[in-house]
Amino acid sequence: MKINRVQELWKNHQFAIGGWLSIPSGFSAEIMAHQGWDVLTIDMQHGLVNASEMVSMLTAISTTNVTPFVRVPWLEPGIIMKVLDSGSYGVICPMINTPEDAERFVSYCRYAPQGTRSFGPSRAVLYAGEDYSQQANQTVLTLAMIETQKALDNLDQIVSVERLDAVFVGPSDLGLSLGYVPGNHEEPVLLEAIETILKTAKSHGKKTGIYTLTPEYAKRMIKLGFDYVVISSDARLMVAQAKQVLADFRLQKIK
Amino acid sequence: MKINRVQELWKNHQFAIGGWLSIPSGFSAEIMAHQGWDVLTIDMQHGLVNASEMVSMLTAISTTNVTPFVRVPWLEPGIIMKVLDSGSYGVICPMINTPEDAERFVSYCRYAPQGTRSFGPSRAVLYAGEDYSQQANQTVLTLAMIETQKALDNLDQIVSVERLDAVFVGPSDLGLSLGYVPGNHEEPVLLEAIETILKTAKSHGKKTGIYTLTPEYAKRMIKLGFDYVVISSDARLMVAQAKQVLADFRLQKIK
Amino acid sequence: MKINRVQELWKNHQFAIGGWLSIPSGFSAEIMAHQGWDVLTIDMQHGLVNASEMVSMLTAISTTNVTPFVRVPWLEPGIIMKVLDSGSYGVICPMINTPEDAERFVSYCRYAPQGTRSFGPSRAVLYAGEDYSQQANQTVLTLAMIETQKALDNLDQIVSVERLDAVFVGPSDLGLSLGYVPGNHEEPVLLEAIETILKTAKSHGKKTGIYTLTPEYAKRMIKLGFDYVVISSDARLMVAQAKQVLADFRLQKIK
Amino acid sequence: MKINRVQELWKNHQFAIGGWLSIPSGFSAEIMAHQGWDVLTIDMQHGLVNASEMVSMLTAISTTNVTPFVRVPWLEPGIIMKVLDSGSYGVICPMINTPEDAERFVSYCRYAPQGTRSFGPSRAVLYAGEDYSQQANQTVLTLAMIETQKALDNLDQIVSVERLDAVFVGPSDLGLSLGYVPGNHEEPVLLEAIETILKTAKSHGKKTGIYTLTPEYAKRMIKLGFDYVVISSDARLMVAQAKQVLADFRLQKIK
Amino acid sequence: MKINRVQELWKNHQFAIGGWLSIPSGFSAEIMAHQGWDVLTIDMQHGLVNASEMVSMLTAISTTNVTPFVRVPWLEPGIIMKVLDSGSYGVICPMINTPEDAERFVSYCRYAPQGTRSFGPSRAVLYAGEDYSQQANQTVLTLAMIETQKALDNLDQIVSVERLDAVFVGPSDLGLSLGYVPGNHEEPVLLEAIETILKTAKSHGKKTGIYTLTPEYAKRMIKLGFDYVVISSDARLMVAQAKQVLADFRLQKIK
Amino acid sequence: MKINRVQELWKNHQFAIGGWLSIPSGFSAEIMAHQGWDVLTIDMQHGLVNASEMVSMLTAISTTNVTPFVRVPWLEPGIIMKVLDSGSYGVICPMINTPEDAERFVSYCRYAPQGTRSFGPSRAVLYAGEDYSQQANQTVLTLAMIETQKALDNLDQIVSVERLDAVFVGPSDLGLSLGYVPGNHEEPVLLEAIETILKTAKSHGKKTGIYTLTPEYAKRMIKLGFDYVVISSDARLMVAQAKQVLADFRLQKIK
Repeated sequence: MKINRVQELWKNHQFAIGGWLSIPSGFSAEIMAHQGWDVLTIDMQHGLVNASEMVSMLTAISTTNVTPFVRVPWLEPGIIMKVLDSGSYGVICPMINTPEDAERFVSYCRYAPQGTRSFGPSRAVLYAGEDYSQQANQTVLTLAMIETQKALDNLDQIVSVERLDAVFVGPSDLGLSLGYVPGNHEEPVLLEAIETILKTAKSHGKKTGIYTLTPEYAKRMIKLGFDYVVISSDARLMVAQAKQVLADFRLQKIK
Repeated sequence: MKINRVQELWKNHQFAIGGWLSIPSGFSAEIMAHQGWDVLTIDMQHGLVNASEMVSMLTAISTTNVTPFVRVPWLEPGIIMKVLDSGSYGVICPMINTPEDAERFVSYCRYAPQGTRSFGPSRAVLYAGEDYSQQANQTVLTLAMIETQKALDNLDQIVSVERLDAVFVGPSDLGLSLGYVPGNHEEPVLLEAIETILKTAKSHGKKTGIYTLTPEYAKRMIKLGFDYVVISSDARLMVAQAKQVLADFRLQKIK
Repeated sequence: MKINRVQELWKNHQFAIGGWLSIPSGFSAEIMAHQGWDVLTIDMQHGLVNASEMVSMLTAISTTNVTPFVRVPWLEPGIIMKVLDSGSYGVICPMINTPEDAERFVSYCRYAPQGTRSFGPSRAVLYAGEDYSQQANQTVLTLAMIETQKALDNLDQIVSVERLDAVFVGPSDLGLSLGYVPGNHEEPVLLEAIETILKTAKSHGKKTGIYTLTPEYAKRMIKLGFDYVVISSDARLMVAQAKQVLADFRLQKIK
Repeated sequence: MKINRVQELWKNHQFAIGGWLSIPSGFSAEIMAHQGWDVLTIDMQHGLVNASEMVSMLTAISTTNVTPFVRVPWLEPGIIMKVLDSGSYGVICPMINTPEDAERFVSYCRYAPQGTRSFGPSRAVLYAGEDYSQQANQTVLTLAMIETQKALDNLDQIVSVERLDAVFVGPSDLGLSLGYVPGNHEEPVLLEAIETILKTAKSHGKKTGIYTLTPEYAKRMIKLGFDYVVISSDARLMVAQAKQVLADFRLQKIK
Repeated sequence: MKINRVQELWKNHQFAIGGWLSIPSGFSAEIMAHQGWDVLTIDMQHGLVNASEMVSMLTAISTTNVTPFVRVPWLEPGIIMKVLDSGSYGVICPMINTPEDAERFVSYCRYAPQGTRSFGPSRAVLYAGEDYSQQANQTVLTLAMIETQKALDNLDQIVSVERLDAVFVGPSDLGLSLGYVPGNHEEPVLLEAIETILKTAKSHGKKTGIYTLTPEYAKRMIKLGFDYVVISSDARLMVAQAKQVLADFRLQKIK
Repeated sequence: MKINRVQELWKNHQFAIGGWLSIPSGFSAEIMAHQGWDVLTIDMQHGLVNASEMVSMLTAISTTNVTPFVRVPWLEPGIIMKVLDSGSYGVICPMINTPEDAERFVSYCRYAPQGTRSFGPSRAVLYAGEDYSQQANQTVLTLAMIETQKALDNLDQIVSVERLDAVFVGPSDLGLSLGYVPGNHEEPVLLEAIETILKTAKSHGKKTGIYTLTPEYAKRMIKLGFDYVVISSDARLMVAQAKQVLADFRLQKIK
């Protein structure tokens, strides 16, 4: 089975640098896959990506050696298994708030006897190789999003769930749940919560990831000990650069 | 944030006139948006509209000042949040039969602390403006469909749910549940149930909407006190006029 | 090979009643196919229908016994042959202004030795049957649009082209070319031109069709002698009925 | 209402021969519909087919008299009702493990008073005819997949559920659940389980279906008493023949 | 008819700032439409945008007051008229090398008596308003790309074509035709050719546009006298920012 | 630039084995790409593949080391350059009947100074690498279809066209043009014509390809000296195997 490069980085005590895809286009995904990310996550939750666009985007990423992840819309078995059959090497599941949530999530991602995933890896076997069915349980990563007060309250139990590989922090939702405006990632209470998640996960042998908005913040998170940082998304990159070139142009206009 | 015109009409004690979209096409939606409706509802339940077609149709409606609503397929958080992130200003949820259903529904539509909606209004922020995250909880409307005997039995509790904005009557399903053929909206027992829903909702300060099949019926419902009537759908309009022009043509043939 | 019902009607000296499809949706096409038209024409010229949507719409029409035609965007061989391979039983080609245009058009629609159509009827053979390749030249209809002053000038030669089955009048473009506002189909000069086209075509044994906007006008054209009238389109029907139900509703509002 | 040919075969004590569709294409589905299957099942679980592609494929099958079934991704009401509204004449639901699962499944497929299906058969009424709403409960088939040890444990109760029409065996998942490698369908324990399912279902008057990989195995299952066998899928057929022609070619190369 | 803002800017002796769209997505187009461009051009030539995606993107742009242009794949009447019927307010046509090319191009974009455009502005009338058919000839802009040695040789005659509104310089193709590597826009011979085009066009009262790769170059072109500069494309912006954030991140890594 | 494996095989005096893709699906294309072909050709002429599906299919093939070719619908520059920008490594152009046709074809495929291809290799540069613009003229293959009597008459001149890499025989169209039923590839006159094409091409240093229907015929063509044989298509493979498994099943039924 084709190796999971994120898993390899983690085994070697290295971190993974991630991009994020919210534009529903295989072309856009393929362009992003050539920029130097270790992993690209197709966002089926807040991105406007449907199931067939997700397949096109996974295919586009598969033309390179970037590892493909998908964030699913919700803890719903139909779409989680679809994402896996389509060849995703990691599933990020939003709003894991209890150990029961985490157990259901992990179960949907694993074949019997470890879980309840149904068999039929239609595109996964093309991407991964003929031994996919034997290796998938050990190779495909499960990342549970910790993004509410309730999840913080249940953190110890959540990170104790067997076969959960990692937690992934969504700072906007977490901040919102803690009473702050989404997008502000500097509130001390939020930062403290992030550190707590990191330590608790580590103490149970789980890996840790986080969504950030800038290279600076991403860097800080790596220094804190995170194993996987998302630095930006296709749409966010496009907007940032558009604002900059238009500002540059207007600035020159004045001079 | 761009105002919700239905909300404005309701604040001014006026009613809203609605069209319905079941054909999965942005072009068709844009044509409908130029006909004079206050609100257009994209039907993801019985219409053959998938998530990316829904986005195209919301975009098409957004070229006008018609307010876009979406009826979701079911009380499932994944699609409800997708519809909101895509920029719908109202969500009509089918088969709300218990107060627990209504509470889950409302919770999926509201950001913390009022609910459990996840943050990431990708297209909504384009449509509504930069203050969407602050204003959405107050601006996006939630309409619970009352369409079964069970919902009638639980009506008082359902309409007592806080932050539910309105109930929406589905006469075909309601009639079916009461033992009648769907499409016959004149059964006294059904009409009585409709009046009960209207009064009960009003007595708890909730707004009321109903799906009708003709301007005459819609007019009666407005006279009864409904705040929002759907008069017809894209497909129904096309069929009615096709039947008429073909009948006219054949009639002339005979003479 | 499945018979061409329009051809059958014509053989029996009957006329064909046509609908028109400009909305790019198989669902919408299938609804239209149940309303009673003899023939439905998918409009790839002014309708917003691309090649794969055209296939979906042909398929939808093929669930009924309505005969499928396609109007192609232009006299371009790539798309004309695609439309035929997809299973259209008639091709309406816009802007045939010279006998050379007509000869090229007919040639693209016929296999050797009668023409230059390339062999590969991928979906046509599913729709029509295994003997499609032997029968297609005799069964698929070619309709040349006459819609400019230049075409009128060359009319005798155009309708003399062998294996051209029919002419089809586009009154809006023809009126525009004659100096009138498109949509006004009552100008005496335009009506005279329409009659000239009809007579000239008939005198050369060609069938005649025309696009109209109302059952009344369609009826007049049938009385004049036309063999095929298009009465309305999906979009036009939807708009007409929407305007009517909204007017009815508002009228009742006043009373 | 258009008859359900599988139901007719079963009434006449005949079995049904099935193909399987995992390629998301109306064209591919239409080709398959001309090969001689009694029934074709669109696989929305492990096939890469989304909801609008499913509609295109149902439409393509509807150009022939092959009966269309859909396997849904999971026991989720939104998609089950969508599949029915789109005109499927049978629903195969994966992972029915308890009688409660089976009851929910059947309920989603039946209109009141027999179930909780919501009314709005948008395309189904085009395919089936105007009396669809009255006849659907008696005509549309429900097939529950038995594919885990847990389902075996609950088998008697599952097959006792009223209005469930049939069970459908998924040998790969069932084998996996019993501890074997998926794809190996010859394990005695698995074969024994298959026989148990068959007998238990029959003893409660339920019909039985099974997914197989070869005509030989399918034949054995028919001899065992199965009422419906799936012999192969679009993708599997393509792969098998590709391997064969390439082997033939290379073999000749050597000689 | 809705005004053409580029035309207005030009009437007021101002220049227009353009973005470019090569990613086939309405969502991506809508994001770009919120960044501050005067005009966005959908690239159907080198962008991977088909006709229905073009419509979605035009619709997305139409939710804002940015002016929509389309670059067509080639001087082919079918697609040029499709783009206009879809509501584009400007057409950029590649490889206009002779006055005959320019005359054909302009003719395809104008209704009789000024040209040969066929009537049927299906979406254009929704975007522009009911008087589209009367005003379109005066409002929709035609931009001929000058990008070969041959076009330079014929420049005087090309810019003498009546009703051609502007020339648009493609520096990469022009450079290639002059013997340089595409992307290098600093060759003196190329810069001289650009100035010649500018002056020749101006002397015949035509407006001028140019595709550039940076705000600096765009600024220089404005100073030279260009009326319309394209600064960057969706894909190019995304790539530039991705490279920058990844470099920033790695830089910090080193420190 | 990524090498063109067909070119490499030819340089090494080996032949290339080809599959053919007519089903518009990236998933189907990816499955085919794992079966062992040297080259897969996406058929935009008789296959039902539009431009965005072609991109998805090229992307799917690009996950493997199979070389992607596209057959274009016709000798039309818009689509030929689109196919190249999308990353095709070979273009098969139908109906090349004269040396002028061949020269236009080759010109559309080559950048200046060798041709008139416009610059903008949006996806090609992702697939091939950053030096695509310098290497494409030497790496991308052009194959002219010889499939009419007229082409036979002009054969010497056609194969004399510089930078045309190969001729490709379409036996069905060629047979049709010679007066035979398409699909019968055994007529002596046709076989003679095929040999003539082969010899004439070889004598001018051109490579030769042919579309066949069976491994046996393909083998004969290789023995004759062809450099590239297409053995079968996705749809044809699926149909052949479906017929076989159904026949096997029914055969067993009898016994």
